[in-house]
Amino acid sequence: MMSQVSPHADRILKAQHLALARGVDALLLTPGTDLRYLIGYDALPLERLTCLVVPAQGDPSIIVPMLERPAALASPIGELGIPVVAWQETDDPYALVVAAVPMARRIAVDDRMWAAKLLRLQASISGIDWGPAGALLRELRISKSPDEVQALRNAAAAIDRVHARMGEWLRAGRTERQVGRDIATAVVAEGHAQADFVIVASGPNGGSPHHALSDRLIRFGDPVVVDIGGRMADGYCSDSTRTYCLGDPPADFTAYFGVLLEAQEAACAQVRPGVSAASVDDAARRVIEGAGYGQYFVHRVGHGIGLDVHEEPYLVAGNDDPLEPGMVFSIEPGIYLQGRHGARIEDIVVCTAGGVERLNLRPRELMILEP
Amino acid sequence: MMSQVSPHADRILKAQHLALARGVDALLLTPGTDLRYLIGYDALPLERLTCLVVPAQGDPSIIVPMLERPAALASPIGELGIPVVAWQETDDPYALVVAAVPMARRIAVDDRMWAAKLLRLQASISGIDWGPAGALLRELRISKSPDEVQALRNAAAAIDRVHARMGEWLRAGRTERQVGRDIATAVVAEGHAQADFVIVASGPNGGSPHHALSDRLIRFGDPVVVDIGGRMADGYCSDSTRTYCLGDPPADFTAYFGVLLEAQEAACAQVRPGVSAASVDDAARRVIEGAGYGQYFVHRVGHGIGLDVHEEPYLVAGNDDPLEPGMVFSIEPGIYLQGRHGARIEDIVVCTAGGVERLNLRPRELMILEP
Repeated sequence: MMSQVSPHADRILKAQHLALARGVDALLLTPGTDLRYLIGYDALPLERLTCLVVPAQGDPSIIVPMLERPAALASPIGELGIPVVAWQETDDPYALVVAAVPMARRIAVDDRMWAAKLLRLQASISGIDWGPAGALLRELRISKSPDEVQALRNAAAAIDRVHARMGEWLRAGRTERQVGRDIATAVVAEGHAQADFVIVASGPNGGSPHHALSDRLIRFGDPVVVDIGGRMADGYCSDSTRTYCLGDPPADFTAYFGVLLEAQEAACAQVRPGVSAASVDDAARRVIEGAGYGQYFVHRVGHGIGLDVHEEPYLVAGNDDPLEPGMVFSIEPGIYLQGRHGARIEDIVVCTAGGVERLNLRPRELMILEP
Repeated sequence: MMSQVSPHADRILKAQHLALARGVDALLLTPGTDLRYLIGYDALPLERLTCLVVPAQGDPSIIVPMLERPAALASPIGELGIPVVAWQETDDPYALVVAAVPMARRIAVDDRMWAAKLLRLQASISGIDWGPAGALLRELRISKSPDEVQALRNAAAAIDRVHARMGEWLRAGRTERQVGRDIATAVVAEGHAQADFVIVASGPNGGSPHHALSDRLIRFGDPVVVDIGGRMADGYCSDSTRTYCLGDPPADFTAYFGVLLEAQEAACAQVRPGVSAASVDDAARRVIEGAGYGQYFVHRVGHGIGLDVHEEPYLVAGNDDPLEPGMVFSIEPGIYLQGRHGARIEDIVVCTAGGVERLNLRPRELMILEP
């Protein structure tokens, strides 16, 4: 899908090498992005157990519900030659997993496996040292291949096209929810397979960083934070925030919006191989603190993005891991005056050999829309 | 939202009574439908820990990331008077959970808590007997209140409106993915907050029950299974399948479609309080087996639906639990001829005191569309 040669066989081998090196006997992966990354199968995340078993040594196999067997075989699993073990509606699929890891002592499970499934596994095999598979797989996923960067560039372009059309929907007299519905429709129309989240935080709601949608009527003079993203057919995610204003902004808003813009620029300018993830957070924070708004910037400056909208690396104080070429993440400082208004500017950027490439290219200045 | 009086305080009390009766000391719920059901908070399912702590005796509290504190307080949590404990980006939220359950020996965790979070909790507190909270909460959620049934009726009407428009998009010469995108857009336009899944299984792809979308060009004469659903703003889900044909169907398809229709009717007719869940599955299966297609009906006849698109009760062989008034579930027999074509007919129905009410009301016959 992403290139002429399937990357999946290579990824499985790398995962097995990592497991062996860490003394992990087997990985158990349920539907989600780790499974999709390793074998290209976009399995349904439902209650019926689907589980890829990757032993550190030996051949992987996958346990699937009978009714999903054709879908599994139609995925890259077929080409990879991974045996598909199908279970009937009245079988116990957990017994099949247990049988597939007969000698294992240390097992790493999908970070997002449902707890109820992990508890079933824990009850089925005793004496196992259980850990999270994400600790291993992050090493594969944290730096993106050129094909993956291109996929994220495409996703960014799609969400940019939605932001470019914001004036069609974002008007005084409409509710956040009405605007949000139009945006969700456009996220799909502009190229995503689905909309993942739509935040329209108008006026005082902008003071809440993770406000979603409400029935509040948007008013003349409101600053509005619009943070939106979706997932493309190939699974890669978009995530971009712009702040708009319906007519002229309030003076106390204008006072900090320029600070935020400067902070976002400073954080982007900090990105290059070898600097710490924390230093990017710090670059934005210093600007905002220097202007006296430090207490209103209540979250980390960014998160990695790929098949997950939030993944490693996290750009947060204390994360001294160095940036590497191919890492892709958000830069999204915000200033939130609770009960009054707020602002956030978010771009996805790539750490390149030479520094940084921004994937979101819409203007970052406050967008004044006709109310 | 759903009625004049918030149901949440009542639900929390019932959950505490159940926990006490089962010897469970505390429930730990992370973002998802159990959390939303209990306290009405539609929290973001992200990597930062949000965790509702419900002790069997004593007052609940909720641990949330600082940046989501305003969103949490804006939810029914505010009215319910549940204390909100906010953690900063560099704090350890798991330590806060441990501190909130000082005397617990048996803890039930959210069925869909991420495994990585459960593993962190298990590593943080020793000597605990861990179990799934779903085993308790299913008793509250499995039968719907009249308000919940109304919410599901609204969701069903919204997805019916999408099926009613299928002729606008489903045409020969288009790919499944193109049609799927139009459907996803319409799922939102017709009243859902988001599209959850879109299956467009044309021609031979119809032989795979959980085929999703492909780049296959839909052809004249293809039967097409369209299984779609979404989530309304209040969180309640829709899920309905109709089978279409572009022009006249193949003879070997017509041979079994009438059988399927009869099987779906038979299963619906079986629904009434006191009969077993398995007997509804059996009613459909007997018709299909009687016509010689038993081996092609490879899944259970249905699943409960509510805040989750799949939840209890499951209508499957071996489930002898009796149906009760207020249970809402799908009836969706299918016949799948792998590599040739397939068909499924799916309605959401309610078990009522007098028998059954169908919520999806579109015609169930094969829909012949202009190719």
